[in-house]
Amino acid sequence: MKLVKPNSSILHITPHPLELIELAGRTCYKSEDRITNESAPHFAKMVVNRGHHSVIEHASATVKFVIDRGVSHELVRHRLCAFSQESTRYCNYGKAGQVTFVIPPWLDIAPCELGMNEWSTRGEALETWLQAMRRAESAYLELLSQGWSPQQARSVLPNSLKTEIVVTANLREWRHIFDLRCSKAAHPQMQEIMIPLRAAMRKRIPVIFDD
Amino acid sequence: MKLVKPNSSILHITPHPLELIELAGRTCYKSEDRITNESAPHFAKMVVNRGHHSVIEHASATVKFVIDRGVSHELVRHRLCAFSQESTRYCNYGKAGQVTFVIPPWLDIAPCELGMNEWSTRGEALETWLQAMRRAESAYLELLSQGWSPQQARSVLPNSLKTEIVVTANLREWRHIFDLRCSKAAHPQMQEIMIPLRAAMRKRIPVIFDD
Amino acid sequence: MKLVKPNSSILHITPHPLELIELAGRTCYKSEDRITNESAPHFAKMVVNRGHHSVIEHASATVKFVIDRGVSHELVRHRLCAFSQESTRYCNYGKAGQVTFVIPPWLDIAPCELGMNEWSTRGEALETWLQAMRRAESAYLELLSQGWSPQQARSVLPNSLKTEIVVTANLREWRHIFDLRCSKAAHPQMQEIMIPLRAAMRKRIPVIFDD
Amino acid sequence: MKLVKPNSSILHITPHPLELIELAGRTCYKSEDRITNESAPHFAKMVVNRGHHSVIEHASATVKFVIDRGVSHELVRHRLCAFSQESTRYCNYGKAGQVTFVIPPWLDIAPCELGMNEWSTRGEALETWLQAMRRAESAYLELLSQGWSPQQARSVLPNSLKTEIVVTANLREWRHIFDLRCSKAAHPQMQEIMIPLRAAMRKRIPVIFDD
Repeated sequence: MKLVKPNSSILHITPHPLELIELAGRTCYKSEDRITNESAPHFAKMVVNRGHHSVIEHASATVKFVIDRGVSHELVRHRLCAFSQESTRYCNYGKAGQVTFVIPPWLDIAPCELGMNEWSTRGEALETWLQAMRRAESAYLELLSQGWSPQQARSVLPNSLKTEIVVTANLREWRHIFDLRCSKAAHPQMQEIMIPLRAAMRKRIPVIFDD
Repeated sequence: MKLVKPNSSILHITPHPLELIELAGRTCYKSEDRITNESAPHFAKMVVNRGHHSVIEHASATVKFVIDRGVSHELVRHRLCAFSQESTRYCNYGKAGQVTFVIPPWLDIAPCELGMNEWSTRGEALETWLQAMRRAESAYLELLSQGWSPQQARSVLPNSLKTEIVVTANLREWRHIFDLRCSKAAHPQMQEIMIPLRAAMRKRIPVIFDD
Repeated sequence: MKLVKPNSSILHITPHPLELIELAGRTCYKSEDRITNESAPHFAKMVVNRGHHSVIEHASATVKFVIDRGVSHELVRHRLCAFSQESTRYCNYGKAGQVTFVIPPWLDIAPCELGMNEWSTRGEALETWLQAMRRAESAYLELLSQGWSPQQARSVLPNSLKTEIVVTANLREWRHIFDLRCSKAAHPQMQEIMIPLRAAMRKRIPVIFDD
Repeated sequence: MKLVKPNSSILHITPHPLELIELAGRTCYKSEDRITNESAPHFAKMVVNRGHHSVIEHASATVKFVIDRGVSHELVRHRLCAFSQESTRYCNYGKAGQVTFVIPPWLDIAPCELGMNEWSTRGEALETWLQAMRRAESAYLELLSQGWSPQQARSVLPNSLKTEIVVTANLREWRHIFDLRCSKAAHPQMQEIMIPLRAAMRKRIPVIFDD
């Protein structure tokens, strides 16, 4: 059994996003003649501040997440994204002889591979959780060996199963996602993955994400 | 532990959907003067056959599904629907002292409640599955008693967990959903729930769903 | 030439919208046992106030607008609606020997049919506008008689051309539309049509539209 | 009065679109180990052929169109695009003392500027159309001088008015747009603009657009 921490990585952002936003936005006002080498950040800031958010839809970002299936089920509820997710139908999650799970942030445990007889002793709930993971892994592998296909055996895999998902959304939608998903009302595992991603996006395009 | 079969029930369909479709469609051609008491089915059939499908978007249907979380994770990928799903964050799935799971169609077992020591003996894989359900239930209940909240303990709940979800979509989107989800390429549990629903829709509005 | 005032009429609202919203919303919390004969308005109000707006997407409303093409070009920018609009390709707008235009709200003129030689004398701009309408009508009719099809001759028809459009949207989207389109920042002709519609919706479903 | 031909120009395409598509698509099957320097085109072709079109949504293209308002009203009906369009509310279309119109493809006339007394004599309908354009221009300029704002005076501007619009859509949506808009059933002016654009896209990303 393999235990990992969730993570996200930005695969792609529209190059020169502010310049594209300015070009699109100035089409609305026919003020293209005001474009200079340095005008884009100011213009983009202005459209964001004025709530003219449709203009920032022209730029987009693609992010790969390694998260658990509990979080991914929430994530795919956003409807203005393109999603490509590791399939529980076509992938054999026990291909390497072990299944990978995501460690919840409230458990004090480092990423690791645990053999069949290794046990944590750091607390009751942690042991309950580790045992549940091990048992789910073992049931999945057994069902495969008893003739079930991966898409049948997925039945026993828990929400904590590691999944990978590539998400493309425009910058307006990313702002909306961060509003909802970095909030204290969001699931702790959602916040855990989204707050650092927002920081990474802010670093890449501060003008769009620094408010 | 409670085991149930999945099901769907139509909560609502736009009343007189064909009449609304005709009224909308004839606005395009300004042919409202051709509306008679009996013209709607013929008109609606014609727009479907001609591929003028945007017109049937004016009517919608709301369906409640009882399915497992593996299937619901696929279902919510449809983006032109309204979804309201039983929360794994706010609902305590063990409130009644037991957790409810959905029986996969390839298992020969009837809906039932199973006490702690009851075991099926109808086959190896069935026993593996039943044991996995029981262990997931027991881990979930333990974690709650060890102080985790439902949104934390959900981590150990498997894809076979019963979930309820209300889905509203327009008739064009339902046609698209049935195209994908009643196909032989769909997951067996998706087909299991969608094929009877398509039949039920066809019974209610044959003109839209009988092709 | 025929001059009309714009108008809207509600063709359809989901029957018992608050009950449907409650049924969907309570699925999320598994609190269906709290449904009573009178609980729906309170529940619906609560989900709106808490910003849990996805729940009100299950109910929808269909509205028919008679507006001008300038306004309709703005209206169809809303992307979460079903639209069926009078076609400028397939409809002959001069079928009755005259073309119909929408009177802008800033012109002091009543709906009427004007013969070839009738002229208003109530102000310079009004005369300019009336003449422009008459000339557009006359160019359109001439082009048809010179062999152009309606989809070619539409080229000369102005923004003030009367168009009919049926729009279906869910209640969340209608709230969003009213937010944008009843605002003082909206085009005067957009406000003219949307403010009374919002009032009509509020009368029909106050719980959803009275904030 | 200025007369122009419509045109489109590709402002931006996701760089290395096939590589991004492959990366996203292989996440579904966990087959990233099969990625080579040359595997992307073959992989992308395969997902298109198999109808696994959601994967190509990760790449997008931004196009600027110069078209008439009749065509733009049709174009903005596509709902999965970002649009930024030259405003008829905030732009003064007569700023240069003249208004610009788009020449329909069935008129034998070259792009030009026409002074007040220049007339074509190449055919009755052409003269009718030119006169209609001139009169619309003159009414618009008069209304502005009589105190109307651009958003009021737009009322008299015809469908043939030149408009600029920047459109961003993912590659799946562009395929869908070309399917509908390059078809013989599309308006001649829509075909006029979309058929060359499809050819340009095909040249840039043949794998996605050559079927």
